[in-house]
Amino acid sequence: MRIAILGYGNLGHGVECAVRQNEDITLSMIFTRRDPASVSPVTKGLPVYDVRDIESHLSEFDVLIICSGSATDLPEQTPKYAKLTHVVDSFDTHARIPEHFDAVDRAARSSGHVALISCGWDPGMFSLNRLYANSILPEGQTYTFWGRGVSQGHSDAIRRIPGVRDGKQYTIPVESALDAVRSGSNPELTTRQKHTRECFVVPEVGADLALIEKTIKEMPNYFSDYDTTVHFITEEELKAHHSGMPHGGFVIRTGRTGFDKEHSHVIEYNLKLDSNPEFTAGVLVAFARAVWRCASEGQRGCKTVFDIPPAYLSPLDGAELRKNWL
Amino acid sequence: MRIAILGYGNLGHGVECAVRQNEDITLSMIFTRRDPASVSPVTKGLPVYDVRDIESHLSEFDVLIICSGSATDLPEQTPKYAKLTHVVDSFDTHARIPEHFDAVDRAARSSGHVALISCGWDPGMFSLNRLYANSILPEGQTYTFWGRGVSQGHSDAIRRIPGVRDGKQYTIPVESALDAVRSGSNPELTTRQKHTRECFVVPEVGADLALIEKTIKEMPNYFSDYDTTVHFITEEELKAHHSGMPHGGFVIRTGRTGFDKEHSHVIEYNLKLDSNPEFTAGVLVAFARAVWRCASEGQRGCKTVFDIPPAYLSPLDGAELRKNWL
Repeated sequence: MRIAILGYGNLGHGVECAVRQNEDITLSMIFTRRDPASVSPVTKGLPVYDVRDIESHLSEFDVLIICSGSATDLPEQTPKYAKLTHVVDSFDTHARIPEHFDAVDRAARSSGHVALISCGWDPGMFSLNRLYANSILPEGQTYTFWGRGVSQGHSDAIRRIPGVRDGKQYTIPVESALDAVRSGSNPELTTRQKHTRECFVVPEVGADLALIEKTIKEMPNYFSDYDTTVHFITEEELKAHHSGMPHGGFVIRTGRTGFDKEHSHVIEYNLKLDSNPEFTAGVLVAFARAVWRCASEGQRGCKTVFDIPPAYLSPLDGAELRKNWL
Repeated sequence: MRIAILGYGNLGHGVECAVRQNEDITLSMIFTRRDPASVSPVTKGLPVYDVRDIESHLSEFDVLIICSGSATDLPEQTPKYAKLTHVVDSFDTHARIPEHFDAVDRAARSSGHVALISCGWDPGMFSLNRLYANSILPEGQTYTFWGRGVSQGHSDAIRRIPGVRDGKQYTIPVESALDAVRSGSNPELTTRQKHTRECFVVPEVGADLALIEKTIKEMPNYFSDYDTTVHFITEEELKAHHSGMPHGGFVIRTGRTGFDKEHSHVIEYNLKLDSNPEFTAGVLVAFARAVWRCASEGQRGCKTVFDIPPAYLSPLDGAELRKNWL
């Protein structure tokens, strides 16, 4: 099975790496909206094409993994390319998933392709765990915590503040809240009780540090509802200690069973990721395999992780999975 | 959708309880190999029939959940009843799953039914998590730990020892081994390093306690490969503190990504269950819903949890799942 990548940022590079770890999959090419000559994949000799030329390469790959942003790119690109080929994306604007699904489904059905949207870890693996856990324990409560990890959106917000040269923001789940959830006490938790935010800021020379700190902590939507800590550091410190993209989180469901609901249960799924984009890429590649399998069966239309039989993610056949993995 | 139960032990009672928590499912009847008059379901008025009369009730339920033991009952019962109706079982003898699958698949295909075997939490939810994690992180290592929980087989082994009146055995994961695995150091762990065993034994009056303890600790297969602790207690203490059936465990996969495998990741799934049979029953009922959905689509043959699209476990439709759960 042959993969093509559209968009060579952190996620596209992650897919490039992930394909190398899957023997049954090869990476055919990268498409870009930039000047192809300006894109240098780590894989020696890998072709890079202008995405405007994609139609002349459709016979050279099986599934296109679209590695663009959710804000404006994916709503336009995924339906557009689902008309031409089988596609996978990581669309993560939760509130707009239904309309994105509908647009992609129309495009994929009319052209006879399979598309899979909103793939990654949240939405993605976390969604799957919420669904399984809720189906098994119908009476209970589900909690999702994120972190400890770098939030790109919050880091961007810090960097837009006057006097800030660079910065990184970490989202951190509150340990005592996690413990309360795991105890099965079904706590009602406010935004402030679930997560804290920690900022590492490189100020411009002569900047008003007190004002920067105040501006961060009072920023509506991003920080004002959280307990936020601000550290001022040097550019060298930022580079040395905060250049990675770690992330992770927890999905916990607690629920009760028994004729009189006398027993309690805790289901927990958690991730600790050194590299958010590389892990997301691993999920995308496994689901690209599933998309290709669905396409080979003659299926068409848009799907999500909820619609894919787990066996389709594996290169192993059913007999081997039952023998060694069940 | 209407469920029938075959076998009214702990698991059958768990299914009885679980159905009450699923509004779209009703419990039609219980089948038993005992004298039906001797079986008293907690649900008032629930019919109990001799399983030899099952053929006269086939129109009164949609899916039969077979709540029998894996050693001798399920290998005979699941193929037998898959010839008559759609069935779900919790067959958990890992080594014999392929032959059980083949027998059930033949029966279900020839008669046009859907069967799902080896459903529960291990095999079942743990298997799913092993499969997802291995597909996402192809280069890494997967660890399964069980407990803290009551092992029925080990408790039975204790009770067979002369001088033992009653007893319970707990399997306990070694915390330092769990921590080593979570650290990503990929430790090679022996049987002894992964789990300890703790026994609570009620001796007969005048029994030789030292001999009982020695017999337990040296018992091959069951205890000799483990660090085992033996506590002698009274019948009242056993009843007061050890009459439950708690269990649980951990599936942890650690793996590396990146062009030169420079990043590490940890995926963990863990369960803490007050009642092993009731939780297993919750899994069985959710997958019975999926079996009925597969059957309604005209599918046939034997399946495992690997073959079921997760959305089929939920009473909610695709649009609602995408809107609120993705």
